[in-house]
Amino acid sequence: MESNDKPQSIHQVTRRALLGAGAAAGASLAMGGAAQSAPLDVPETWDEEVDVIVVGTGFAGLAAAYEAKKAGATVALLEKMRTPGGNSIISGGVIAAAGSPLQAEQGIEDSVDSLYDDMLKAGLYLNHPKLARTVAEKSVETVQWTIDELGVEYRGLAHMGGHAVPRSYALSAASGSGIVVPQLDKLKEMGVEPRTRTLLKRLIRDGEGRVKGVLVHEKFKHPDMESGTPKTIKAKRAVVMATGGFGNDPAFREMQDPRLGEGLDTTNQPGATAEALREALDIGCMLIQPSWIQLGPWTSPDERGFGMAPHFVQGITASYGLWVDTKTGKRFVNELADRKTRADAILKTGNPCIAFSDSEGYAKGTTGRPTDNRGKMKKAGVLREYQSLEEMVEDFDIPLDELKSTVEAFNAGVDKGDDAEMGRYMPKNIGKIGKPPFYAVRLSPKIHHTMGGCGINEKAQALDVKTGAPIVGLYVAGEAAGGVHGASRLGSCAYADCLTFGRIAGQNAAAEADWG
Amino acid sequence: MESNDKPQSIHQVTRRALLGAGAAAGASLAMGGAAQSAPLDVPETWDEEVDVIVVGTGFAGLAAAYEAKKAGATVALLEKMRTPGGNSIISGGVIAAAGSPLQAEQGIEDSVDSLYDDMLKAGLYLNHPKLARTVAEKSVETVQWTIDELGVEYRGLAHMGGHAVPRSYALSAASGSGIVVPQLDKLKEMGVEPRTRTLLKRLIRDGEGRVKGVLVHEKFKHPDMESGTPKTIKAKRAVVMATGGFGNDPAFREMQDPRLGEGLDTTNQPGATAEALREALDIGCMLIQPSWIQLGPWTSPDERGFGMAPHFVQGITASYGLWVDTKTGKRFVNELADRKTRADAILKTGNPCIAFSDSEGYAKGTTGRPTDNRGKMKKAGVLREYQSLEEMVEDFDIPLDELKSTVEAFNAGVDKGDDAEMGRYMPKNIGKIGKPPFYAVRLSPKIHHTMGGCGINEKAQALDVKTGAPIVGLYVAGEAAGGVHGASRLGSCAYADCLTFGRIAGQNAAAEADWG
Repeated sequence: MESNDKPQSIHQVTRRALLGAGAAAGASLAMGGAAQSAPLDVPETWDEEVDVIVVGTGFAGLAAAYEAKKAGATVALLEKMRTPGGNSIISGGVIAAAGSPLQAEQGIEDSVDSLYDDMLKAGLYLNHPKLARTVAEKSVETVQWTIDELGVEYRGLAHMGGHAVPRSYALSAASGSGIVVPQLDKLKEMGVEPRTRTLLKRLIRDGEGRVKGVLVHEKFKHPDMESGTPKTIKAKRAVVMATGGFGNDPAFREMQDPRLGEGLDTTNQPGATAEALREALDIGCMLIQPSWIQLGPWTSPDERGFGMAPHFVQGITASYGLWVDTKTGKRFVNELADRKTRADAILKTGNPCIAFSDSEGYAKGTTGRPTDNRGKMKKAGVLREYQSLEEMVEDFDIPLDELKSTVEAFNAGVDKGDDAEMGRYMPKNIGKIGKPPFYAVRLSPKIHHTMGGCGINEKAQALDVKTGAPIVGLYVAGEAAGGVHGASRLGSCAYADCLTFGRIAGQNAAAEADWG
Repeated sequence: MESNDKPQSIHQVTRRALLGAGAAAGASLAMGGAAQSAPLDVPETWDEEVDVIVVGTGFAGLAAAYEAKKAGATVALLEKMRTPGGNSIISGGVIAAAGSPLQAEQGIEDSVDSLYDDMLKAGLYLNHPKLARTVAEKSVETVQWTIDELGVEYRGLAHMGGHAVPRSYALSAASGSGIVVPQLDKLKEMGVEPRTRTLLKRLIRDGEGRVKGVLVHEKFKHPDMESGTPKTIKAKRAVVMATGGFGNDPAFREMQDPRLGEGLDTTNQPGATAEALREALDIGCMLIQPSWIQLGPWTSPDERGFGMAPHFVQGITASYGLWVDTKTGKRFVNELADRKTRADAILKTGNPCIAFSDSEGYAKGTTGRPTDNRGKMKKAGVLREYQSLEEMVEDFDIPLDELKSTVEAFNAGVDKGDDAEMGRYMPKNIGKIGKPPFYAVRLSPKIHHTMGGCGINEKAQALDVKTGAPIVGLYVAGEAAGGVHGASRLGSCAYADCLTFGRIAGQNAAAEADWG
């Protein structure tokens, strides 16, 4: 029989809610997060209408807003927190580009394939190939765009863990603010300003599956999810979700990885929670690979959040120093391995571990700081300084002879440019470790990035959980999307991902057909 | 302001669909899988009503139906395929029980903690602790239930990979039919028979979040997802989803692990697809850990599906034989390691690998077959027989001296009961390998089990994606649920999981408050 020739009974249905749909929406608001809320129907009238709604003001959201506005769309740019920038503005300040002008200047050979291979290797080959390749292919263009369009300034190349060669442009500003601030300035010039304290409460999807707008709460007071004033905004073309990851959402993290619930520190800002992702899933986005949650290996237990330690640990000790297990005095991982490899290795030792360098190593590395911040780090108790290895081993209770053997074995390979023990990449200016003072940081991995998220295609279109097909009117970019990084994201690839897919999302959102 | 004191605009909404809800459902049916379908509203009249609807007739569904019926509920037991049993009926025939009577008879010490620890170790500690512990704690009770209530017959203990000790009851029937058939017989006695060719098309959830029934297609013809006749069934108490995994759904697999799309063989039956899971997610279930997809390590490329090889490979060669890389002639993994460890190790060699035993090993192992099926396996080209190691190495192009060294090294440990190379558990009746004929099977991992699925709590209640709270009226059990096994399921733990949580789901579904 034809499927539209059905028995009578399924034609005779009541409405889902006894109340009108608006009242149902009100009821869900009143009930708060505890009760399930029915899907919102499309309002007859909206409080406001624009072409494109962008939710989130990290790299991806700001890049999407820029491209949508540039393409002639009217844009509403929403941010739930009091200030824009999300995790991006507090992030480490490095962006991967494969085959860049800076690499050419320094005689470093690189290619799109090499970056792609590194991403897949770190990602345990769980990366969605087309997504990872898009990021690798556009990496140089993306950096160039930040320079040409935004005036972003860089001051050199860094070698991030898991990358075959130094290929990560280091921001002069030494943090993501070096891109976010120019993005915000540029948008202001173009007439788009972030509406802070505006929470995405509901996505509104119609019966044919198109996303048509949002319900927000203005004057939202984080973290009170019921605070603020409801308002509907119509998206005549599309909504871009650039709402970030869930690294600071213990309940959601714990569902996907029961080891990572309450009580673990994270590098993420307080707004890195899952309510927008939950809403996207509730209206039918496909969730992919959510149990892959990255711990940053370079954080310190002696400060909260991301802090100051990572710049020292990654920029100096990973290339010019050593990481050792204090119990054994031995190295336990290639200090330039990808993040997952290193974080897993630290945890596997079961012992306190440190990262240290000597004074020459300190001078050679890229601290990520425009000025020397050793004093500040020491004052905060994060960095410790020693006049000799003997003094250092005493502080951490490291077996001295073992540590000396470790340093000697490493130094023996320095002249040959060969790290026999761990196979670490040796920079040309590597030197033997030995000149005091020595600097050390204690290591303690913290939750840093959530690789999973909404399934998207290479146009940044969200994919429907029922059909796998694109959801018309909904784009997802940045950490809110899954699949680019597979099991583990390489350092400096989030910048490339967020800016590249943010731009793609903004361009495609502006080009979506106007539904009215 | 109070959140129920909202601006006018969000009260003034149109219905989501221009059509009535019944017509909208019809439209979605007519449009097929390509278009997104709006949530179904609760029908005013239903074609049928029962207390509990159970979807799926593998171990979990049949156990749920049994318990619900036993508790006095009326039960509709739905199965989309022509015959009941799902993957369960074709599965390997072993069920884990920790601290069982059979173990006591054989002097094997075991405990709930030991099984729990093995599950978590294999699961890379991603298992939801309460779910894994429930399975371990109830494992003996569950096996006893199959004996006492169903009259299931067992014929000994098997030692499955990743288990500290032999603890898996081997069915006399040598496949899951040894439990499924008694389950079906018992249910028939109780007046419940599976309704085959009945596809779960939609779950119906009301505006307050309660699941109230289903839309099915009767006379469904797999795999035509639009075939059959629509019918609504009201579940006055609850719906139990026991719809299995997605091991035979390349599109869904590929979303979660891009390496595992089309073209890979699977041990799963053709109905092991994701449409029911997609529907559960669409009405708001939380999806957890979906990218963990298990490959069975003991399958052969010389036959399709699960086939005959696994019983020989696991039951004989893993305890009494050896697995070798044909290129090197060396062992490459503990043959009794968990499935993930072994499948990963096979793939990592990059070379053809075989599992073999000598004739004494063959006699000592548990083939899982009531009668000798060597002849049948040989005829099918799955098992190869050799009168000497020389003959075997010639067939597979193995370096003879290397293989001989491998066998000698293993044999040297046999007297001491110590596998120095791989640390494999040595059964008391282990003997030296050497007595011809030798039997060998080629190894080629196939997709076997999907660990992820709907998030549930220890009552088998499905969890809401927005709130994390239980969805009233919806239970999920068996492979359709996620979290019990974490990253990798141990052999014989699916039986324990499916029967235990199937029973829990059935009991709780029957006890759910009647909504009318």
